[in-house]
Amino acid sequence: MIRNFKLTIEYDGTGYHGWQRQKKDTTIQGEIEKALEIMTAKRIVITGSGRTDAGVHARGQVASFHCDTDLMPETFLKGLNSLLPEDIVIRECRQVENTFHARYNVKSKVYHYKVYNHPIPPAINRLYVWSIRKQLNIKAMRTASSYIIGSHDFKAFEGTGSPRAHTTRHVMVADIVKSDSRLLTFCIEADGFLRYMVRNIVGTLVDVGLGKRSPVDFKQILISGDRTKAGATAPASGLCLMEVKY
Amino acid sequence: MIRNFKLTIEYDGTGYHGWQRQKKDTTIQGEIEKALEIMTAKRIVITGSGRTDAGVHARGQVASFHCDTDLMPETFLKGLNSLLPEDIVIRECRQVENTFHARYNVKSKVYHYKVYNHPIPPAINRLYVWSIRKQLNIKAMRTASSYIIGSHDFKAFEGTGSPRAHTTRHVMVADIVKSDSRLLTFCIEADGFLRYMVRNIVGTLVDVGLGKRSPVDFKQILISGDRTKAGATAPASGLCLMEVKY
Repeated sequence: MIRNFKLTIEYDGTGYHGWQRQKKDTTIQGEIEKALEIMTAKRIVITGSGRTDAGVHARGQVASFHCDTDLMPETFLKGLNSLLPEDIVIRECRQVENTFHARYNVKSKVYHYKVYNHPIPPAINRLYVWSIRKQLNIKAMRTASSYIIGSHDFKAFEGTGSPRAHTTRHVMVADIVKSDSRLLTFCIEADGFLRYMVRNIVGTLVDVGLGKRSPVDFKQILISGDRTKAGATAPASGLCLMEVKY
Repeated sequence: MIRNFKLTIEYDGTGYHGWQRQKKDTTIQGEIEKALEIMTAKRIVITGSGRTDAGVHARGQVASFHCDTDLMPETFLKGLNSLLPEDIVIRECRQVENTFHARYNVKSKVYHYKVYNHPIPPAINRLYVWSIRKQLNIKAMRTASSYIIGSHDFKAFEGTGSPRAHTTRHVMVADIVKSDSRLLTFCIEADGFLRYMVRNIVGTLVDVGLGKRSPVDFKQILISGDRTKAGATAPASGLCLMEVKY
């Protein structure tokens, strides 16, 4: 019987060339498909909710796959976790309706971007943050980030070389949380993301935090739709896909 | 002029054979002394507050060294951090009285031991925890851990092969903090620690949490002074030296 399975996946992206299967390089999708082939003796293609780039982490990436099998979700969960390297973990496996599609059915996604803000960078957890030495003005960053809430054309924050036909996205949540004296987390939820969108927004927000740009500059960059006006792309290490909502 | 410097050091111990300099293997002390030699063109021996074992982390290890130099503490801080690998970071460098000794003058040390308690182990932060799949009874663990508060002979929790003449230590704090649904932190502060003492206590506390032993069993192991009665040594990855007090 053909069943459809939904996987919720956590990974430390440090050692991977991103989500998407590639011929040569090690990727998350490639590792999971390899493990599925060992379990089922079939070539199974999994569909992710979307790609994550090289070095980006996830606590709640979602993927789905169809398979003609009698294996139960619990069996896939245990089998995959025993086969996968320890930096990729399946947190949940459920059988879902055959019509469920991990990419097309996405309602929204939640990303967190962590900035470690201290004159001296961290040794512990260094692979999960972007270290900024100069003190950031969080109030200014919060004001700037509020401008992206709602429906906007995010062309100014799209990665070059991967243009989409439609660049308007709806942002439900954009907030900066200070969890301790050194750690800022930029939380963003939207119905979809352009390539490098979070990292380009964060790069520009950090410019605001450093006083290189004002919150109003940030707003004008958003309105301009001009990528060349935005700040540099923030490093991959700070970014984590937290949740995909359906 | 001979000055005495005090370093506060953070490190991710994953890739190191512990604190203490060794001929062949890479150690924290070895890396710092190598960087000091590059800065000063002198062979400088640093004195740590104590050793940490292979794979153990630190957020606040302390070391001191004497050096005939005009260099300022700020210069050592910046110079060392630019020379050291990114998993060792000097958080503070201060000039202190010539009589200050990083080991002899210790009043107490604070260690944290992190346990990730969930049927599925973590991918992110996996190098900083001990993953326990079965649900732990935290109440029982708290009761057991309370028995070590005060002055006790900790012979039962001393690592074999490295006996000390005096095995009595004074524990000021022993507590288990649940920071989220999956993460337990065992916090202990004492005037000194025997080798493997924290990891042997945690190994035995986890036995209590799993119901293999009762809190009273734990107390009797402590009183017995018999290492063979205690649980297994908990893995190094969960342990972090948080602070050394003088």
